Amino acid sequence: MLHSDTRRLSYNDTDPAGILYYASWFPKMEALLSDFLYRHGYRQDHSLSARGWTTVTRATECEYLVAAKLFDEIRLELRIGRIGASSFQVAYRMVRLVDDALVSRAVTTLVLVDADQRAIRIPADFRRQLEEWAAA
Amino acid sequence: MLHSDTRRLSYNDTDPAGILYYASWFPKMEALLSDFLYRHGYRQDHSLSARGWTTVTRATECEYLVAAKLFDEIRLELRIGRIGASSFQVAYRMVRLVDDALVSRAVTTLVLVDADQRAIRIPADFRRQLEEWAAA
Amino acid sequence: MLHSDTRRLSYNDTDPAGILYYASWFPKMEALLSDFLYRHGYRQDHSLSARGWTTVTRATECEYLVAAKLFDEIRLELRIGRIGASSFQVAYRMVRLVDDALVSRAVTTLVLVDADQRAIRIPADFRRQLEEWAAA
Amino acid sequence: MLHSDTRRLSYNDTDPAGILYYASWFPKMEALLSDFLYRHGYRQDHSLSARGWTTVTRATECEYLVAAKLFDEIRLELRIGRIGASSFQVAYRMVRLVDDALVSRAVTTLVLVDADQRAIRIPADFRRQLEEWAAA
Repeated sequence: MLHSDTRRLSYNDTDPAGILYYASWFPKMEALLSDFLYRHGYRQDHSLSARGWTTVTRATECEYLVAAKLFDEIRLELRIGRIGASSFQVAYRMVRLVDDALVSRAVTTLVLVDADQRAIRIPADFRRQLEEWAAA
Repeated sequence: MLHSDTRRLSYNDTDPAGILYYASWFPKMEALLSDFLYRHGYRQDHSLSARGWTTVTRATECEYLVAAKLFDEIRLELRIGRIGASSFQVAYRMVRLVDDALVSRAVTTLVLVDADQRAIRIPADFRRQLEEWAAA
Repeated sequence: MLHSDTRRLSYNDTDPAGILYYASWFPKMEALLSDFLYRHGYRQDHSLSARGWTTVTRATECEYLVAAKLFDEIRLELRIGRIGASSFQVAYRMVRLVDDALVSRAVTTLVLVDADQRAIRIPADFRRQLEEWAAA
Repeated sequence: MLHSDTRRLSYNDTDPAGILYYASWFPKMEALLSDFLYRHGYRQDHSLSARGWTTVTRATECEYLVAAKLFDEIRLELRIGRIGASSFQVAYRMVRLVDDALVSRAVTTLVLVDADQRAIRIPADFRRQLEEWAAA
């Protein structure tokens, strides 16, 4: 994996059934990706002015395989997935620490867009970077 | 559609890019579904004791087609989609009021489970209800 | 009251104890205020360019008087409170529909700032507007 | 301080003005407190059955002193504050790592309640524990 974060599920992450609230992963996924890109010099908020492009989320999906519970410690892992002409995928795995159970998995598709929000082809330098990450 | 809710996007729904934060739809989708089921006599928190089964979210996916912005009024619509042996899908459409643009669409897959969280076949009476909703 | 919104508490609003999660009111308070100001011609995101000032949240507080539960219908009410030299307060009441119980009350203090985020005196025209709202 | 957590502010924490969304601290405060109590053997969800009491949030307040921005690294610190007959306060400080600026401070008041949600006097053993934490 390229980046990860381990968290104990809290009251905000769980619902009256005592299990993970399904929407809880999405902000954590974004925070992990934003932190990963920031550490590699890709500030998304400066990207348009610095590079002429930025990314927008085109789609996301998540599967819930095991019912994670309040106080479970979960490691959220990030990988780079399929790379297209103007988009790439970020894959996430949510793993319960106590038994390495795969609790959830998710994929988000990001598209590179210009200042007018039109999709552009991934520039060569960023494509090389993505391919390097995907091969890691 | 079976149920809907119209909301103006607020600061909590949007990010520093000034557009919808991708995770914002998921709690709104759940709230709309929970309210819909509640109005039809299906309190999810009483379902296990009243009927012997409850639902868990097995998967969700969402596409972002148009960049919704702060203060846009959006109608979130709910429909019942594909009905399987032990699962059914709830389909959502997010429509911008000012021009009827389809901003996003999403699908959530719910599985019926017993008290031990094992998937069960959808009981005949609830299947009839689902089919009635799907045909509406 | 000046503005209100009625919502049924959902899974996202409640925690494994089956009662309201204490942080749930704050985004709802902001959404109600943003909608109120928008309806009266005060778009916060255009305020700096249109008027030379905007508002920032300086403080917020909330009391939890009754334990609201999943599926309770709650009316969130907004009033304008104390008006200072450069700040004003927005007061909220959360009322349970079924028995008119006051579930929570909250106050947020907003400060008017210029483009450099320095506090400014409330301009005369906006002060008149605030006083009109406070007297309503 | 007794416990802390350091996080980079992400898109979910910030709003179209590019600064911290005021409601963002509250779930982080709860998660830090829940984790702290868990590490010291006080699982809140087992507290009623194990000890005959649990805690409910009675009030919370937060001040915003400096406008934290996207990608700022913030250390959230937890301390035990004033201890009353049946309640105690948890104090939080949000400190920006790059310059040690105090960005926000907050206080939450928790009340000990029995199974019927009635306030009870803090038992002697838990009071000793609180006093030890407050003196740390």
